[in-house]
Amino acid sequence: MTFATQLNAAILRTGSVTCVGLDPRLEQLPKPLRESVSENRKDSVAAAYTQFCCEIIDAVAGLVPCVKPQAAFFEQLGPAGMVSLGEVIAHANRAGLIVITDGKRNDIGSTATAYADAYLGSAEPERSPWGSDALTVSPYLGRDSLEPFVEVCDRRAAGIFVLVKTSNPGGGYLQDLSVDGKTIYQSVAELVTELNKSRLDADGYGPVGAVVGATYPEQLVELRKAMPHSILLVPGFGAQGGSADDVRAAMDSNGAGAVVNSSRHIIFAHKREEFSVAADESNWQDAVRAATVQMNEQLKG
Amino acid sequence: MTFATQLNAAILRTGSVTCVGLDPRLEQLPKPLRESVSENRKDSVAAAYTQFCCEIIDAVAGLVPCVKPQAAFFEQLGPAGMVSLGEVIAHANRAGLIVITDGKRNDIGSTATAYADAYLGSAEPERSPWGSDALTVSPYLGRDSLEPFVEVCDRRAAGIFVLVKTSNPGGGYLQDLSVDGKTIYQSVAELVTELNKSRLDADGYGPVGAVVGATYPEQLVELRKAMPHSILLVPGFGAQGGSADDVRAAMDSNGAGAVVNSSRHIIFAHKREEFSVAADESNWQDAVRAATVQMNEQLKG
Repeated sequence: MTFATQLNAAILRTGSVTCVGLDPRLEQLPKPLRESVSENRKDSVAAAYTQFCCEIIDAVAGLVPCVKPQAAFFEQLGPAGMVSLGEVIAHANRAGLIVITDGKRNDIGSTATAYADAYLGSAEPERSPWGSDALTVSPYLGRDSLEPFVEVCDRRAAGIFVLVKTSNPGGGYLQDLSVDGKTIYQSVAELVTELNKSRLDADGYGPVGAVVGATYPEQLVELRKAMPHSILLVPGFGAQGGSADDVRAAMDSNGAGAVVNSSRHIIFAHKREEFSVAADESNWQDAVRAATVQMNEQLKG
Repeated sequence: MTFATQLNAAILRTGSVTCVGLDPRLEQLPKPLRESVSENRKDSVAAAYTQFCCEIIDAVAGLVPCVKPQAAFFEQLGPAGMVSLGEVIAHANRAGLIVITDGKRNDIGSTATAYADAYLGSAEPERSPWGSDALTVSPYLGRDSLEPFVEVCDRRAAGIFVLVKTSNPGGGYLQDLSVDGKTIYQSVAELVTELNKSRLDADGYGPVGAVVGATYPEQLVELRKAMPHSILLVPGFGAQGGSADDVRAAMDSNGAGAVVNSSRHIIFAHKREEFSVAADESNWQDAVRAATVQMNEQLKG
């Protein structure tokens, strides 16, 4: 089964388009985990990240189709963090969650293949070292930097999400520049659609997804149409300002074809008063689960 | 001393603008190292990569100003590879070589800061987990994705190299698109120059360097002028087709202000007949040294 087929099936099975972003930060961990860290040592922080992310995975398994670990926060801890990232991905695989590693990688030729080899593929015998089902990639180096990723997707039933229109305030600096009436993000969207051709599953989806921020609702509508074969990964919901009405435009008529990421609002839900977490924050996992159910409900509408 | 000051001083001290690209690949390692690997196990390959890169560093220390490990080839081995990357960088630090990690990272806001924290800074007390002096970064996410890197550069006397005009055949797909008579790579070059302002050292260089491929000689001349405050990192010399005359355009009137990368031609020099390596490839380090001296001579002219 291809990556797109699997992800759309997981959306329909869970009745959810929520993607839980795993962005651990030491200072925001629940108290029991923060206090388990000795002297701010990197290996000790990494162990706390592993426990934190694995407990989140246990809390949300069955409620959502996928999780998205943010590589940067693990890399920040050095090699110990990369060991943690591998453990977290493996735990999510075992819990039946699809894993999108957010690494925004890219390079040219055989170097791009090395990144694809490293991250893409969760199933034996082609399981990759990190074991994720998909990876986010940057398009600045052009078409020939994306093709090596797509070839590995073909072999390993994996996916990529190409940055098309990002959610940050300055995202438009290059992405919105307009060439003969066509913006850069529209050019990237065309490339994404071309790469999917000849790779479509029975529902018309291919392995090349796209990142489109919820913070630009008009472009989300436009890009949903421009990339009919792409699953959209939509960041920027909630904390960054995108509303539920905004992001529903990303889904297809089956309510699939897109996943909406939330990181802080879910993983640090113990900081949200509405979930009445105990003073010692020992029941923080309940808040994670409640925040996930709440987001699922918001996105149904 | 800032990153730019240090790198220019190292260029003048060694009389070389050669940057040795550390791109290890199992199948191309010299025989003694290839044969040391047990059953293709990733930890065993990683140990061979560490030994290979550290011996290259020993062979070229004093001959060149800097080395550029390619993160992708280490990541391809999973966590064991990332341990190797850290060991290789630390060894290069100790050998007095400046280290540019080629990771082409980027993200937004605090996630960009996490990448900068992970890779930038080689000196105590601000040494980062990976300990490199500089990192390559991608500009697709816009100005606000580069600023967090520059702030960490300020604190840690580090540098970044922004992808401006890459050396691959398809690099122009986005980079050459022209908006009101200005190409995308020219827009990125302007951004690079703006980010350097107010951060210049006594020679007029700032922490924000730029990647400009040797395979586009006209653009190299143009971009040298457009980014007077940037050290240029020039890939594409030799194996990819850029000539010595082409790349000399990247240097300033002191013969500094640029480094020219070569990976395969130096690190796999044991495969080049002209260096008469023994059949058992036991003296492969001599070929590395000879290839480095040869490249230094070619670039002097």
